[in-house]
Amino acid sequence: MIRDAQDSVCQAIEAADGGGKFKEDVWSRPGGGGGISRVLQDGAVWEKAGVNVSVVYGMMPPEAYRAAKAAATDQKPGPIPFFAAGISSVLHPKNPFAPTLHFNYRYFETDAPKDAPGAPRQWWFGGGTDLTPAYIFEEDVKHFHSVQKSACDKFDRTFYPRFKKWCDDYFYIKHRGERRGLGGIFFDDLNDYDQEMLLSFATECANSVVPAYIPIIEKRKDTPFTDQHKAWQQLRRGRYVEFNLVYDRGTTFGLKTGGRIESILVSLPLTARWEYDHKPQEGSEEWKLLDCLHQPKGVALISFSGSCLWNIVPECSIQLPFCFLEIFSPSFPAIES
Amino acid sequence: MIRDAQDSVCQAIEAADGGGKFKEDVWSRPGGGGGISRVLQDGAVWEKAGVNVSVVYGMMPPEAYRAAKAAATDQKPGPIPFFAAGISSVLHPKNPFAPTLHFNYRYFETDAPKDAPGAPRQWWFGGGTDLTPAYIFEEDVKHFHSVQKSACDKFDRTFYPRFKKWCDDYFYIKHRGERRGLGGIFFDDLNDYDQEMLLSFATECANSVVPAYIPIIEKRKDTPFTDQHKAWQQLRRGRYVEFNLVYDRGTTFGLKTGGRIESILVSLPLTARWEYDHKPQEGSEEWKLLDCLHQPKGVALISFSGSCLWNIVPECSIQLPFCFLEIFSPSFPAIES
Repeated sequence: MIRDAQDSVCQAIEAADGGGKFKEDVWSRPGGGGGISRVLQDGAVWEKAGVNVSVVYGMMPPEAYRAAKAAATDQKPGPIPFFAAGISSVLHPKNPFAPTLHFNYRYFETDAPKDAPGAPRQWWFGGGTDLTPAYIFEEDVKHFHSVQKSACDKFDRTFYPRFKKWCDDYFYIKHRGERRGLGGIFFDDLNDYDQEMLLSFATECANSVVPAYIPIIEKRKDTPFTDQHKAWQQLRRGRYVEFNLVYDRGTTFGLKTGGRIESILVSLPLTARWEYDHKPQEGSEEWKLLDCLHQPKGVALISFSGSCLWNIVPECSIQLPFCFLEIFSPSFPAIES
Repeated sequence: MIRDAQDSVCQAIEAADGGGKFKEDVWSRPGGGGGISRVLQDGAVWEKAGVNVSVVYGMMPPEAYRAAKAAATDQKPGPIPFFAAGISSVLHPKNPFAPTLHFNYRYFETDAPKDAPGAPRQWWFGGGTDLTPAYIFEEDVKHFHSVQKSACDKFDRTFYPRFKKWCDDYFYIKHRGERRGLGGIFFDDLNDYDQEMLLSFATECANSVVPAYIPIIEKRKDTPFTDQHKAWQQLRRGRYVEFNLVYDRGTTFGLKTGGRIESILVSLPLTARWEYDHKPQEGSEEWKLLDCLHQPKGVALISFSGSCLWNIVPECSIQLPFCFLEIFSPSFPAIES
């Protein structure tokens, strides 16, 4: 499944890029397993696009176990045998109006520690697909989320609202008090369904990447832009770096287990920027994005500023990932497709 | 002391820059205390130069205590009252041949937890000054280290070799297996000397920043460079970001204690770059830097490549911070000035 997804996403990216070609690296991990990294750098449309698959196994230190598992309350002492297979991708386009996409679907299994051979093994699925634009286009966000919802609904109608909220909670840059992007779906530690069903679900999600993302790219890749637009995109890329290096579980897991650094950090953008105390002008397009990324925690409806108002219009309810759900849930009924 | 150091460094930077002026922000911390951040952005010589002083106090969570203290074996449960005062600075020049400088000197005090009022309070000094060039100039590294050594030698002749090694060990990007830069001095948890003496020592170190750094900048700021030189500098800036966000104790402490984000992250460069699997050509100037940043752990003398050979020439022994000491210590005698 992960090889098929890698092939189809890379083909779609190359076709849309029109110029760049993926370069493939096959690598093996000293501790066990290996992977295939494909990277397209400095293409016509994408600045950096990485699509990696890996199958790794071995012994993981306890800190890595905590990084790998969201709810690691079952603390195990000592190294734990593990197996992990997954696909992971980050696609950074050049045009500041074309959004970055990240997706990752993985299966994880841990065995009992060597000193407790009777303990049960554990398995779980994790993953998600999420969109990180530098500028908001309502129709793009709506399209992206509706494809995620369709994929989820084929399996369980509770998945989309649940995994959409999880996505908003996960891609949160705590020290900034802002989301990395405009969400999508995210789940982890998923094992309370049939294993085959979850594999089909993860496959469906991976297959939804191309229809969710490529039409947005086709629409935005040639939009004219100024140096100011580019500088804003670069600042947002800086936030992407902050999230990935400080919070992202996949990245921290990889760094702690001695994963292949170039494959792990291919998620970082080609270029990024940090300006001291940069504040977009109120009401600007840049400000509108920031306003939607800032957590409206504990904010009553009445305090909503104009730029987020469309979140509370029912037909737009699936567009923006967090403002809406955080305020209305759990009283808001499941969205009907 | 910290205000005086801020003034003198900022004056020297402005004079050398010739164009840029520092912008000052005075801020207060909701939990207690505040600071003065001075930032010069997009100057003639410096891309981004930040010199911050802060005096903060309040209650710190246990994770923050671990981040603040290098050897936090004395784990305290629950929040701990703390006081911290310090100066911190990162100076990123534009010219790829002009090195980045970081320095930070701080005093820390923790009180007993509220639920254990009898426990002893603790205090310590920490800090250091280190140089991160994108290209090696032997004479620059030698000059920089000799000023650090002179400052140390005024107080204790064991300081320089000890704090130089500590610096090399601290500024280590573990997942890359490479040092961030070419070292300097670094110390933490220093409390086994008279408190006044350590304050004088930290003051002397802070006063050594200008004579150690500015002459190098004067020499390199106008060196002609190509796009390739600039791209290499940008890749090294990416490494700087990796170290600061993943490992730096000051940064992680700040993020965990809800410090002022813009002051903490002013250490990040204005721009940075990540290319997939970038490998400089063997023997190139870029390769020479990398070769010296890679840890020669367990490497016998015989395997030394040409670019590091000058480390083992006695008269150059204080130039490059790690290759030499790691191989010869503890048998190598203290360097005589």
